[in-house]
Amino acid sequence: MFLKNCWYVAALDQELAHGRLLGRTVLGEHLLIYRGESGSVSALNDRCPHRGALLSKGRLEGDGVRCMYHGIKYDGSGKCVQIPGQDMIPPKLRVRSYPIVERGHFLWVWLGDAAKADPALILDLPYLRDPSWKGIPAYLHYKANYLLIVDNLSDFSHLAFVHTQTLGGSEEYAYVSKPTVIERLERGFRVERWHLNSDPPPFHRKVIPDKAAKLDRRNIATMTVPGIFNMETLFAAAGQGKEAASRGGAKEYRNCQFMTPETERTTHFFWSYLNNFEGEDSTVSRTLLESLIEGFMEDKEIIERQQQTLDEDPSFQMLGILADAPLAHFRRVLARLIDLEHSDGATQRPEARSTTPAG
Amino acid sequence: MFLKNCWYVAALDQELAHGRLLGRTVLGEHLLIYRGESGSVSALNDRCPHRGALLSKGRLEGDGVRCMYHGIKYDGSGKCVQIPGQDMIPPKLRVRSYPIVERGHFLWVWLGDAAKADPALILDLPYLRDPSWKGIPAYLHYKANYLLIVDNLSDFSHLAFVHTQTLGGSEEYAYVSKPTVIERLERGFRVERWHLNSDPPPFHRKVIPDKAAKLDRRNIATMTVPGIFNMETLFAAAGQGKEAASRGGAKEYRNCQFMTPETERTTHFFWSYLNNFEGEDSTVSRTLLESLIEGFMEDKEIIERQQQTLDEDPSFQMLGILADAPLAHFRRVLARLIDLEHSDGATQRPEARSTTPAG
Amino acid sequence: MFLKNCWYVAALDQELAHGRLLGRTVLGEHLLIYRGESGSVSALNDRCPHRGALLSKGRLEGDGVRCMYHGIKYDGSGKCVQIPGQDMIPPKLRVRSYPIVERGHFLWVWLGDAAKADPALILDLPYLRDPSWKGIPAYLHYKANYLLIVDNLSDFSHLAFVHTQTLGGSEEYAYVSKPTVIERLERGFRVERWHLNSDPPPFHRKVIPDKAAKLDRRNIATMTVPGIFNMETLFAAAGQGKEAASRGGAKEYRNCQFMTPETERTTHFFWSYLNNFEGEDSTVSRTLLESLIEGFMEDKEIIERQQQTLDEDPSFQMLGILADAPLAHFRRVLARLIDLEHSDGATQRPEARSTTPAG
Repeated sequence: MFLKNCWYVAALDQELAHGRLLGRTVLGEHLLIYRGESGSVSALNDRCPHRGALLSKGRLEGDGVRCMYHGIKYDGSGKCVQIPGQDMIPPKLRVRSYPIVERGHFLWVWLGDAAKADPALILDLPYLRDPSWKGIPAYLHYKANYLLIVDNLSDFSHLAFVHTQTLGGSEEYAYVSKPTVIERLERGFRVERWHLNSDPPPFHRKVIPDKAAKLDRRNIATMTVPGIFNMETLFAAAGQGKEAASRGGAKEYRNCQFMTPETERTTHFFWSYLNNFEGEDSTVSRTLLESLIEGFMEDKEIIERQQQTLDEDPSFQMLGILADAPLAHFRRVLARLIDLEHSDGATQRPEARSTTPAG
Repeated sequence: MFLKNCWYVAALDQELAHGRLLGRTVLGEHLLIYRGESGSVSALNDRCPHRGALLSKGRLEGDGVRCMYHGIKYDGSGKCVQIPGQDMIPPKLRVRSYPIVERGHFLWVWLGDAAKADPALILDLPYLRDPSWKGIPAYLHYKANYLLIVDNLSDFSHLAFVHTQTLGGSEEYAYVSKPTVIERLERGFRVERWHLNSDPPPFHRKVIPDKAAKLDRRNIATMTVPGIFNMETLFAAAGQGKEAASRGGAKEYRNCQFMTPETERTTHFFWSYLNNFEGEDSTVSRTLLESLIEGFMEDKEIIERQQQTLDEDPSFQMLGILADAPLAHFRRVLARLIDLEHSDGATQRPEARSTTPAG
Repeated sequence: MFLKNCWYVAALDQELAHGRLLGRTVLGEHLLIYRGESGSVSALNDRCPHRGALLSKGRLEGDGVRCMYHGIKYDGSGKCVQIPGQDMIPPKLRVRSYPIVERGHFLWVWLGDAAKADPALILDLPYLRDPSWKGIPAYLHYKANYLLIVDNLSDFSHLAFVHTQTLGGSEEYAYVSKPTVIERLERGFRVERWHLNSDPPPFHRKVIPDKAAKLDRRNIATMTVPGIFNMETLFAAAGQGKEAASRGGAKEYRNCQFMTPETERTTHFFWSYLNNFEGEDSTVSRTLLESLIEGFMEDKEIIERQQQTLDEDPSFQMLGILADAPLAHFRRVLARLIDLEHSDGATQRPEARSTTPAG
């Protein structure tokens, strides 16, 4: 059961290079996503309505696509424009199309009621359109429900145990740092967490010259429905983090992650991890990309196994601890929105939120 | 739901060489097919009724087979003839046998009511027993329902798009050639299609000396229940195909294909592609075998993906175009025969058909 | 449907070496089995009750284990002893533990009512604790229900056909030898079988100096619920086996096999094959280990295929022969015990049995 009337990231722009016909399943629906020769982007149902052949195995022609089974051609809106050997085109022979919007390197689709697909509802993360923030958008596939990834990102104490050698740095993180602020939002939550006077974690140490100096680390994480995570990370010299005035030379990151359900048991995971200090050389971004993949693979292993556990033991009931308050709130928010959508009481438009960088 | 009271090709004779105990599932039933030491062919249920071990993992002894779990032996009719360490043989301990008939290189089985298994009902394709037609019988396994392959063979416009570089030759085939005759038969259909003044398609060009001359191409295809396809192909010099009198030097093919359900989702695909011009050298046959496998693999990719689509989206409804008239007729014919079989109104014998080469 | 109130072998001691956290499914329940730093052995449910992460992917700490997702720690009894970043431990946050007993090289668990888990109910096979019997405990995984392995061991005529080249020796075994005694026991059966004046079977020939002399072979097999097989094998010079007084120089084996359900379709198969003649050198034991694995792989192939047959043809009904009397009795005994357990009429304690070597 997914929230349908909202925007989901479905692809990265780099996945559509060179006229590629990208077959991608989103919320259980099979989509063909592609950039036509004019540059416009289309999202169509990925089945030729004639015999069910995949349009993503077809051929791009202009802004349309030809099915390469019997040669039937559709334009970018899904309208059939040619049947080889037949003059009359039956009106029912058309392919469903979906609203799709390109924002920076990300392509957002809307699988619900197309009449409600207002691009203004797309969550605006300002650093994604600010050239002073550098990063490399990337993708991973998860064999797990997207909410298990949301859960993972909702409690950063896991950094200490899952990512000790990569993104975390030490087990101390779980013991001495706690969320200082947990804010329940209408469409998600916001958590702030400090870790003072600590060693730089491995991913950060790799991209800074002084590997030994103690640092203050602050994470401000926001989660928004359906599964959009962004986190603002600051590393300042030890003792200087808490006071904004003293943060000269602080280094910051902006982590943008998008969890899009492929099916009930699989997820598309897109991200861009941005920094504000590398200048024109992409070495820092590429090093961070490697570090993030390394860390995400640690998450992926534990989360995919968690999905297997739930599949094996459908009666398994998780037991909450205090740190689960944000994820419990998020699941309630999402369940309420899905209920609203189904009861069709959702006559008012969902509300757009812009996230302003804190700090 | 399969038609049971009819003959299906279950194996090629070459598959039974050297006393091989061939385990093969046909219409969901697990068969052991083998040639006994006397030369006779048997088809038995492939489970020892004692503990369910596979008889196809057993040992050929004379015209019988011994289960190699506890050593119980059956003769070629399925009768138990020995239980090691036990004198009395219980009459219930026997294996079901199935009528099986060898015709040329093909073995036909009958899985329905054995009393109705008249060999005269086997479709007679005369070129399969005419030594002037040369070919190499072969086999492919499909992960798709057999009717999806029947569908594929019912509309040759797919040659233009699926087989452009192999069996088709050009996309023009779909636009300028159309079936000139579509004949609805009691147990299938017959379609005739001309393509005049065209380049030889790749599979034909490989086996003729003059690669450049334009040709007239005629295909006469017949489909017969349960899933037997034969096609008579003629290539004549351009301008001479239409008049039989002027066809000196025409080259002809006879394509015989047999689609036998393994299960609802998989198919045994047997064929022999015959030519009348190679003489005693088998180079032409072997070249054609390679070309056909190349082309069939193109079909297989698209058809197996079609099966996946149907499995993923059970509610998917195909939409017909004009070219689907033969396949729609065939599916109606088959559905009616299956209905008849189930209502047991099928008291009259199914009718045998002999296909005379058109000329 | 398994018998729950009884002991099952769940692991070999060698599997717990070096602090390994062994994840093992028994009767469909997911267990973590490990030896703590004090030497004691624990069996816990293998899911952290917080978010379902596997404890077997966690970290051994003393006699407890720490989940490496969010760092929650449990002691060897399953009690939660630490939640990083949280002082209060909710009493519900604990892991189920299971009675576990180490006997020789085998670890026995009890998955039913822990109050009934009396170690005196563990079947005592005296040769497993007698240093004059030598052997190497080993393990195989089967993709088949454990009762199909029990069936296999219940009729030794299969030695003749499945194991002709390994454990059996000749097909004659099935024809000239028969069980001389079949004893129905309250919790299983006992079968005695002689094969006189025969060649030594391959596994025995490999470990004796005189490869040619004829031998008398006696097998006394006992099967006990839930799936414990032990067999006493004697090879004496031909003509001397029947009379105990004349058996000087006889060589004996003790075969102990434990079939423990992993799931309804898979089995843990543990065994130790002991001999009384090798002295201090382990060459005989290692040679026998190889021979047994070779033979068991022959069983495994046929039994796993049998499981597939039952999965494919759920309506398949096996037909008994005379040799199936012991297995039929065993299945009745087991079914009755399971029924009793479910009707809760099982108020009296299950009875322990000690197997005395026959001689």
